[in-house]
Parts: sequence; C-alpha cells; structure tokens
Amino acid sequence: MPTPIIFDTDPGVDDAQAIAIALAHPDIELLGLTTTYGNVDIETATHNALLLSELAQQEIPVAQGAAAPLVKPKHPAPAHIHGANGLGNIELPAVRGKALDMSAAEFIVSQVNARPNEITLVAVGPVGNLAAALQLDPGIIDKVKQVVIMGGSIREGGNVTPVAEANMFNDPHAASRVLTAGWPLTLVGLDATHRCVLSPADMDKIAGAQGKLGQVLAGSYRFYSDFYRGALGIDGCCPHDSCALAWLMKPELFTTARGHLTVATEGYAEGQTIFAPEGRPFLGEHWSSTPAVEVCLNANGEAVVSWMLEVLG
Amino acid sequence: MPTPIIFDTDPGVDDAQAIAIALAHPDIELLGLTTTYGNVDIETATHNALLLSELAQQEIPVAQGAAAPLVKPKHPAPAHIHGANGLGNIELPAVRGKALDMSAAEFIVSQVNARPNEITLVAVGPVGNLAAALQLDPGIIDKVKQVVIMGGSIREGGNVTPVAEANMFNDPHAASRVLTAGWPLTLVGLDATHRCVLSPADMDKIAGAQGKLGQVLAGSYRFYSDFYRGALGIDGCCPHDSCALAWLMKPELFTTARGHLTVATEGYAEGQTIFAPEGRPFLGEHWSSTPAVEVCLNANGEAVVSWMLEVLG
Repeated sequence: MPTPIIFDTDPGVDDAQAIAIALAHPDIELLGLTTTYGNVDIETATHNALLLSELAQQEIPVAQGAAAPLVKPKHPAPAHIHGANGLGNIELPAVRGKALDMSAAEFIVSQVNARPNEITLVAVGPVGNLAAALQLDPGIIDKVKQVVIMGGSIREGGNVTPVAEANMFNDPHAASRVLTAGWPLTLVGLDATHRCVLSPADMDKIAGAQGKLGQVLAGSYRFYSDFYRGALGIDGCCPHDSCALAWLMKPELFTTARGHLTVATEGYAEGQTIFAPEGRPFLGEHWSSTPAVEVCLNANGEAVVSWMLEVLG
Repeated sequence: MPTPIIFDTDPGVDDAQAIAIALAHPDIELLGLTTTYGNVDIETATHNALLLSELAQQEIPVAQGAAAPLVKPKHPAPAHIHGANGLGNIELPAVRGKALDMSAAEFIVSQVNARPNEITLVAVGPVGNLAAALQLDPGIIDKVKQVVIMGGSIREGGNVTPVAEANMFNDPHAASRVLTAGWPLTLVGLDATHRCVLSPADMDKIAGAQGKLGQVLAGSYRFYSDFYRGALGIDGCCPHDSCALAWLMKPELFTTARGHLTVATEGYAEGQTIFAPEGRPFLGEHWSSTPAVEVCLNANGEAVVSWMLEVLG
C-alpha cells in the first residue's frame, strides 16, 4: 500500500526535486500539492506546482495557500537563491491546469477528515498552511497519520540567521503553532539536510532520466548551485526538501532524538527551533511542557543522495 | 616567563579545581582571585577563594565583586550542584585571611593599568566583574593581553536552558557587554568542556598529590559527581572551569573558530551565545557587526584531562 501524502511546498529549486520524487516514487500516493509563499511569491509557487506535475504527465490537485506570514511582515523572496521564477530563471513551458477552488488549508482539512489516520502531511516551506488548517479544524491533530517538516536546526546553526532556518524564520508564529500542536511530528532540519550534497554529476543522471521534468530540474539546479558555491563553498547543493521524503521512506538513514520544541518568535532568536531533549533537566517548567516530537540530529548523507538517485536517476 | 592572570571565579567545585591548577602551574602567575556570586553567594565565593589559596599555602590577593546580576533578578545559587557551601557541603577549615579593601572591578582595572598588555583575564563565572571593570575604565580593552571566558555554548546546547549555559544565563547583560567589548577574547564553552570528563580515579590521583587542598577538592568532587550521575548519567564530572586554563596553556588541544557573538538578553533565548561564523552571509547587518572573537567548538577531552593530571596529579 503506498503512503498517501499531501505535500506543502513553495517551489523553489529543491522543492522541485522533492516534488519529482513524490511524483515518481511507487510507494508514495501524492494526494495533492498545497502551495505557500516562501522561496517565491504565492502565485509563482502555484504556477510551479502545476507545471512540475504536468511535466511529469500527472494530474495532481494543487491548492493555493498562504501569501504571507501569520503575524510578522513578509520578507522579500530570495530570488538570488531560487531565481525570480523559483526555478533558476530558466525559460519555462506554459501551464495548462489551474489550482482548485479551495484553499490549501481547506484541502488539508477535507482530505484528512476523508481518510482519518491515513494521511501524512509533508511540509517543506513556511508552515502557514498547516497552521491555517489547525485553525479551521483542530480535530485534524488526532486524524493525521504523521507530520514531517523540513525546517529548523537543532545543533547545526541557521541559514538565515546564525540560529534560524529559512522556513521557520519566514513564519515563526505558524511554526510555533505547528511544531507544538501535539500531533506525531518529525522535524527534518539542517542537522540532516546539510549532511546531503547533490553533486553536478548526480544531477546529470536525474536530468537524463526524467524527460522534460529532468531538464527543468537540471536547469534550475545550475542557478541554485551557483549560490551554494558562492556563499558556502560547496560544489553541489543540499537537497533540503527531498530529505523530508527520504526520512518518510527511509527513516533508518537518519539519527533522531525525542524531545520538546519551542519556537522563538521574537528577538535575536526569532525563528530558532529550541530543542529540549526528553528527560534533561532545565530551569523552569516551560521547556518540557510542549508535546514530545522527534527531531533529526544527523543523516547518512551519501545514502540519502543514493536513495534520491534510485528514485530519479 | 610565567603568564600573569587574574582569575575571576564563583567557587564552586569545578572552580576550586581550576584555582588549584592556577596555584600549582609553574607557568601561571596568579595575580589575584576576583570573586562573584554564581555557583554560590558572594560571601561564600570570597570565603572559598581565600580558603583554597591558604590550603595551598599561598598568599593570593582576593577582591570581592558582584553579589548580583547587572540588570535581571538573581536566581538562587544551585546548592544541589555545588553544595550550600560551594564545596560539596564538606566540613571546611577556618579562613585566616580577608579580602582586599577594593572591589573586583577596581582590582582588575588597577592591575591591568599597572602592567599594560601583559595580563590575561580568565573568568569562569557570571562575568559581571569584567563588565563593571569596563564601566570603570573602558581603556582596559586595549590594555589586557587577552580574555578567556568559560561560558556559553555554540553548537552543544545549554545546561540551564536548552540553549543557555549557566554563567551566561546568570548575567546575560554583563555577558553581552564583555563578549562584544572588542578585546582579544576566547570563549571556552560547553562545546569544549562537555568533551572532558574527570573520573573518580583521576580525582583520587589529585587527592593524593595535593595535600590538604587535595582533600577538599576530592571531597567536594563526590557531591558534584553525584549531580552528574543523576542528571546526565555521566560517571565523573566535567571540569568546566579548568578548561579555560587548559585553553590558555594548551590551545592546541582545542578546535576553535573565529566569528561574531551576540548574547540574547530576553525571551526564550535569554543567555544564549549566538555565533555567526566569520564570512557566513546572514540576513541583516547585525550579525557581523560585533567584534570578531574566537570560540571553542571542540576539545581533545582526554588530552585536556591528562594535562590537568600532569599539573595536579
């Protein structure tokens, strides 16, 4: 039985790779793509979600969601990382389809209620759509099978500030709601994704095997890897969002720990995912008062990338 | 030529070990002990500083300093870790000497001005005395040789909150002043000190070699290691404060990085030492705007403990 998932995304170059995996993997049933601002603005996110599934010749429902954070002002999209069009500024084919006539949050709520205890939510952008779904129907907390979030950093430091990862920093209030909701949740953050580097040679294999979709993935990868080379000195790029799916399908490739998360919403730590390992004594009642979740502390990066190439290469 | 230091301390079991090293090491010239509240209240800190040098049959000037944080309210001293008397609640001999008739901050300022570019400040408690010295005479920034702080955590997580180490948490405003003052500074935090474990057998060697002082070190160690066993499951204890001296005398045993520190003074991150590695791009001008310092990211724990035993065993 394939694993039914809803994939919440702001595509984005590494999102596109992850969407390709979700479309291609025989053991994943992709129920829909829900879109959010983040790497790109919301209209671009929705356009790219439609485009990517069309390039794979699949009809996947797309529901548009958050155009902005819950509380804080919106930061400009990082066009220097993903390109203004989210896919490395390469020329893109026209899109035929259009988004559903319901919001991302409505789509999540209706799907989860239709198939209680079956659906996994995989979110790889700012998590405002999940927060909005919880606002519409907190009852989904007990009806999702699990929630996998690409975001945050436990020991690795951040990528937007020294302590905050981009998805959590983009909407820390939504992150606070979602990461402490009390549903079965795993955080796949930079501690895992920075262990994984997709090299130019890896990308050539994907480009050769994935037809039109592969060409878009490879073209956008070039732009994205220029950023990695310049800013971080890495030859290749970290396939952050694909790591959330890798954890879902191959959890044995990751080192995890249980504990309690607090998301800082203010001050220098804004967007930081503060982790209190289960059972560690800290000053104050707060730290162990949030529901226990699972966080990734490490990954076998080579094995994760090999798995990606098995699916796409 | 021995290295002249002023040792700022809140003794404290691991402080006592470090003081013993400073007293015993032939290449350290201990100009004075300045005391602060922290592991114990200020009167107890001063009492213990006087006692420890008397037990080693040395006359070391002791200057009493901060009884409380600069800005925030004082937390109760952690009697469950160091004992109510700071030395594991063992019976202690009477003290004959008394503290100088000047504050810790005055002592620091006068010594540094008397020997410009010669003196290293080693601080292993909350750093209020250094902040007070900077308030009295900011000119010492250019006159100390270097500043070594035991405190903070870069990647390791905290020991009082999930992100804050005790010394920095105890007075985050002082820490912010001291860690961003622009003097040559190295932070020896939990990333290094948690790599070092002083075992009961190690302590037996020290007890046997250090006479009356060794008996006090070993007796207080028993209480302190009970805490480590209960809270952290470690058989032994981390000689946090001695690591600052180990870095000073044996920097080759540590892995360090250069970058910029920000100390959070408010909110969930209160007391966190946020580290922006030099050259890493982050959102906002702030992160690279503080003076560059050096932080420890790792230590060869076995070699550090061996060095302690060479000095004291």
